[in-house]
Amino acid sequence: MIHLKTTESYIASMSLSKRIPMFLLRLLALGAAISATIIMLTSHDSAQVFGMKFEAKYTNSPTFKYFVLMNAIASVYTLILLFLPSKSSFGHLILVLDLIMVLLLDSSISACLALGQVGKNGNIHAGWLPICDQVPKFCDHVRGALIAGFIATIAYFIILLYSLHNVMNLFALKN
Amino acid sequence: MIHLKTTESYIASMSLSKRIPMFLLRLLALGAAISATIIMLTSHDSAQVFGMKFEAKYTNSPTFKYFVLMNAIASVYTLILLFLPSKSSFGHLILVLDLIMVLLLDSSISACLALGQVGKNGNIHAGWLPICDQVPKFCDHVRGALIAGFIATIAYFIILLYSLHNVMNLFALKN
Repeated sequence: MIHLKTTESYIASMSLSKRIPMFLLRLLALGAAISATIIMLTSHDSAQVFGMKFEAKYTNSPTFKYFVLMNAIASVYTLILLFLPSKSSFGHLILVLDLIMVLLLDSSISACLALGQVGKNGNIHAGWLPICDQVPKFCDHVRGALIAGFIATIAYFIILLYSLHNVMNLFALKN
Repeated sequence: MIHLKTTESYIASMSLSKRIPMFLLRLLALGAAISATIIMLTSHDSAQVFGMKFEAKYTNSPTFKYFVLMNAIASVYTLILLFLPSKSSFGHLILVLDLIMVLLLDSSISACLALGQVGKNGNIHAGWLPICDQVPKFCDHVRGALIAGFIATIAYFIILLYSLHNVMNLFALKN
């Protein structure tokens, strides 16, 4: 059974039936990454705690800023790829860039989740109080951004698996 | 210029000169992942704050527990692979598992870094005070675990690039 392809023929043979799912996946990733960026950018809420005004926004933490930056980078990168001619000869470079992209998105969402968990539940051992009761709108935005970022990450993970599968049959019984 | 390989011949042609760097990279990843696990597991410090005993250990946060779990999984996985016969026929599966491993390690270290940043600098907006002045030994351990975890992640990233390079020449000018 011949189920393999040399990489020389990889790009050339990217038939329409293979390019359409890839295009749709990139479109999904683009929508999710842009949504994540915008939802996080617009996250804002304020509350009065003990008479002091407490304002919550994404710039309050370097982790949220990192999340915005990574999702913005993913958006721009995906946008460029969508307009790249399909017969482009950067197949390998794109595979490596896709890998880096999924790692950056994975990293940004994990960092954000760790911080969000403290924001939601606090940490009694460290004396950090939860803040979501005070600024529920901010927490809702962060939650929304995390969901969108998660979809972008999953989309990129599938893009990567799909690219690998196009280069070599991942589901072959042997190999 | 023939610089390509079909995947059929991938495993069979994994010559000694290619298996030795891979073995060394896995050995590095194993050492780093085991170190990260042990350093985090043994992180412990306590302090008296306002007359109350404050104890810092990794079980205080789900993020640190997640870090320990992921590095333990990476250790066991790497150990199994080191003892797997070199002529094994799970090439593609291992590539995908390596990808998942680098994503899990990346995720655990990013989450831990986000939490560590709050532990070190606090967050004035959320009213979270830094804790590293009170429990410096704990913070040193977390820092050490993060460095070891980072080395394991980088090792797995290189393992992945190297595996991809063995399947298809990543640095070919064309493609």
